[in-house]
Amino acid sequence: MKARNAEIVGIGTELLQGALEDTNGRFLAEALHGIGIEVVYRTTVGDDRWRIREVLRQALDRAAVVVATGGLGPTEDDRTLDALADVTGRPLILHGETLKWIEERFARRRVTMPQSVRRQALVPKGALVLPNRHGTAPGLVWQKRGRLLVVLPGPPREVRPLFTEQVLPILLKGTGRGRRIRTRTIKVCGLFESQVEERIIDLLRAEPGTVGLLARAGEVHVRVTASGTAGRVGSQLDAWERKLRDRLGDAVFGVDDERLEEVVGRLLRLQGKTVAVAESCTGGLVVHRITNVPGSSEYFERGIVAYSNRAKEELLQVPSSLIEQHGAVSPEVACAMAAGVRRLAKTDLGVAVTGIAGPGGGTEAKPVGLTYIALADRQGEEWYEHRFRFAREENKLWGSQMALEAVRRSLLKTTGKK
Amino acid sequence: MKARNAEIVGIGTELLQGALEDTNGRFLAEALHGIGIEVVYRTTVGDDRWRIREVLRQALDRAAVVVATGGLGPTEDDRTLDALADVTGRPLILHGETLKWIEERFARRRVTMPQSVRRQALVPKGALVLPNRHGTAPGLVWQKRGRLLVVLPGPPREVRPLFTEQVLPILLKGTGRGRRIRTRTIKVCGLFESQVEERIIDLLRAEPGTVGLLARAGEVHVRVTASGTAGRVGSQLDAWERKLRDRLGDAVFGVDDERLEEVVGRLLRLQGKTVAVAESCTGGLVVHRITNVPGSSEYFERGIVAYSNRAKEELLQVPSSLIEQHGAVSPEVACAMAAGVRRLAKTDLGVAVTGIAGPGGGTEAKPVGLTYIALADRQGEEWYEHRFRFAREENKLWGSQMALEAVRRSLLKTTGKK
Repeated sequence: MKARNAEIVGIGTELLQGALEDTNGRFLAEALHGIGIEVVYRTTVGDDRWRIREVLRQALDRAAVVVATGGLGPTEDDRTLDALADVTGRPLILHGETLKWIEERFARRRVTMPQSVRRQALVPKGALVLPNRHGTAPGLVWQKRGRLLVVLPGPPREVRPLFTEQVLPILLKGTGRGRRIRTRTIKVCGLFESQVEERIIDLLRAEPGTVGLLARAGEVHVRVTASGTAGRVGSQLDAWERKLRDRLGDAVFGVDDERLEEVVGRLLRLQGKTVAVAESCTGGLVVHRITNVPGSSEYFERGIVAYSNRAKEELLQVPSSLIEQHGAVSPEVACAMAAGVRRLAKTDLGVAVTGIAGPGGGTEAKPVGLTYIALADRQGEEWYEHRFRFAREENKLWGSQMALEAVRRSLLKTTGKK
Repeated sequence: MKARNAEIVGIGTELLQGALEDTNGRFLAEALHGIGIEVVYRTTVGDDRWRIREVLRQALDRAAVVVATGGLGPTEDDRTLDALADVTGRPLILHGETLKWIEERFARRRVTMPQSVRRQALVPKGALVLPNRHGTAPGLVWQKRGRLLVVLPGPPREVRPLFTEQVLPILLKGTGRGRRIRTRTIKVCGLFESQVEERIIDLLRAEPGTVGLLARAGEVHVRVTASGTAGRVGSQLDAWERKLRDRLGDAVFGVDDERLEEVVGRLLRLQGKTVAVAESCTGGLVVHRITNVPGSSEYFERGIVAYSNRAKEELLQVPSSLIEQHGAVSPEVACAMAAGVRRLAKTDLGVAVTGIAGPGGGTEAKPVGLTYIALADRQGEEWYEHRFRFAREENKLWGSQMALEAVRRSLLKTTGKK
């Protein structure tokens, strides 16, 4: 069975004005790529009947699968249906089931249905109609001469279920046991991009396009791509992962969608340990990330955001003399904060961050971005110094990343894992 | 001078695989829209010389300005230069100044320059070269028969300064005192989208395309667009803003990029008041948002993330009997948390959130998403009940939004503002 390619079409003037992120485009790109359909173009066009028509025609001309989203709303702005009638050459007819569904939806909400909404029950004659549980306008599928045109409404929370539950099965049937392209992302913390590159430079060079590097805040992602039959792709990616873990060791913290806070959570749970957090410059972000993980209440006891010195003294029992002597941004105070929160919360671990997030508050001796991370366990405290050179929010992000990484490193040590 | 339109072209196979958000596309869309150049298409294409060439040719055919980004790197993957030679019909020549700049860059970093990097100093003969302070490859501008082709390297932190400092002046010269399109976003909190719609339905209907609604987590954005000469556009938008504020009153919290946490911060500063936060289900997000604002240390004293009941008792002096009697997720405990953190932090205001973020922890009586917000000031406490119906992280976001909104409402009351 032949490999197929696709074009993604986003419809909506707002996308051309930068007002909205093109969430659908990215989701569809990832989803199509994931089942081995190569996306060759993404096109965005405004709510203009003529332009939508031309874009859809060109897309059907240069790709076997076209997935378009947007412009199916009830207002005058929404021109996709008209363009669709032009492209398919079929008249628009009122789809009874859809109309009934829309009427029921309004009745359930006890809202009078505006007449304009009826428009959303129009479909090109002969199109396959995909019922939309999460909105008004249905999805539409049009097939002709081996080409597949899918049109979905714009809201991302409607696109995702429609695509996953109803479009994907159609595409997979077409693809059969054919070629797959899959990607795996190996995520690294604690090494700079250049250090990662150095360790795998031969792999990057030997297989250009197969291995790629991407630097994120406090993380480096190594992305490997494999293609072949469904069965072989998995084992190829496994082999790549083993090779990369071999080179990068402990610096690898996770794979694909795994987030550092999830990995830290899993380690804490595995070891039956608890943690408490004391933050200054990261201002709650460390705790926010920890508590994003479902079930984190099992291992996370409390978080203190001690912005003022008084809060550091009262809530973390940091001696005021220590702050006077070394300043609030110092290894000594970081260690006292970590030990203090651990002692008061009666947890196994305490982690603390103190620093200068900026833009104000820096001095020559203690510049903006200077950050101390401390980790306390029953053996005592250890600390790390960092100097971030970003804007306030990115400095916060890096600080939270390094704090979570400090917890991860400490947990790896105690398992005796290398 | 005639209005001009533009096409934005993103080059890079990763963009087609959904691995990266198309940050540049969105930035350029917003920037071009902002100076009154209508973006009519956005196209994304992979690193394929033939396809890049065809896309650029088509773009030059249907738009007066084409801004392309990506594919100028040193590796074999990067095909934009070759395609550019095809499109312009000019040979690639080595640009002496660029080569010198690249060599110096490597020398400064004490890194041996790989031969492949020399490739980045190639430019089509006759193109205008834009020096790139933030990277290796320069930007390129090609002008022919009233059409303008701009090609910039892919990294967003190179695109932004290159575009703003060097491309924008060229475009503005072309646009002259011509037509401008500008947009203003009026941001609303405390009303549902349907409530906002109801209050301004006549405006939405009377001027389709001029006024649009967008629902975000806990916010509704009303977006108005005006066009005309530079001078008139501003006064049109001001008139719109007055009209909308008239209809929506206090629910309008800000305009354009202003964030709720910034508005709250400004009110606190204006009134010389301080705040402390006690969170449970939002897990630090309220404090994270407050401390994202530069200078927040002036009015923010401390934040307590009291995940465990023990932490609520120890750190906020919530009586254990209260938790036993009403449960941790209750108006009573929310009020006790707000009053407790205010009393201990000695701040003017105390705000608290307690709820069930999910996915676990819900019961029939207290389902996932149930959230209480309490606000304490010297007159006592008041509380709000919410029921969010989202996933964990979105529930946290809504909770933080409603907590900040509670602070804003309370501050508006004390100023006697309507």
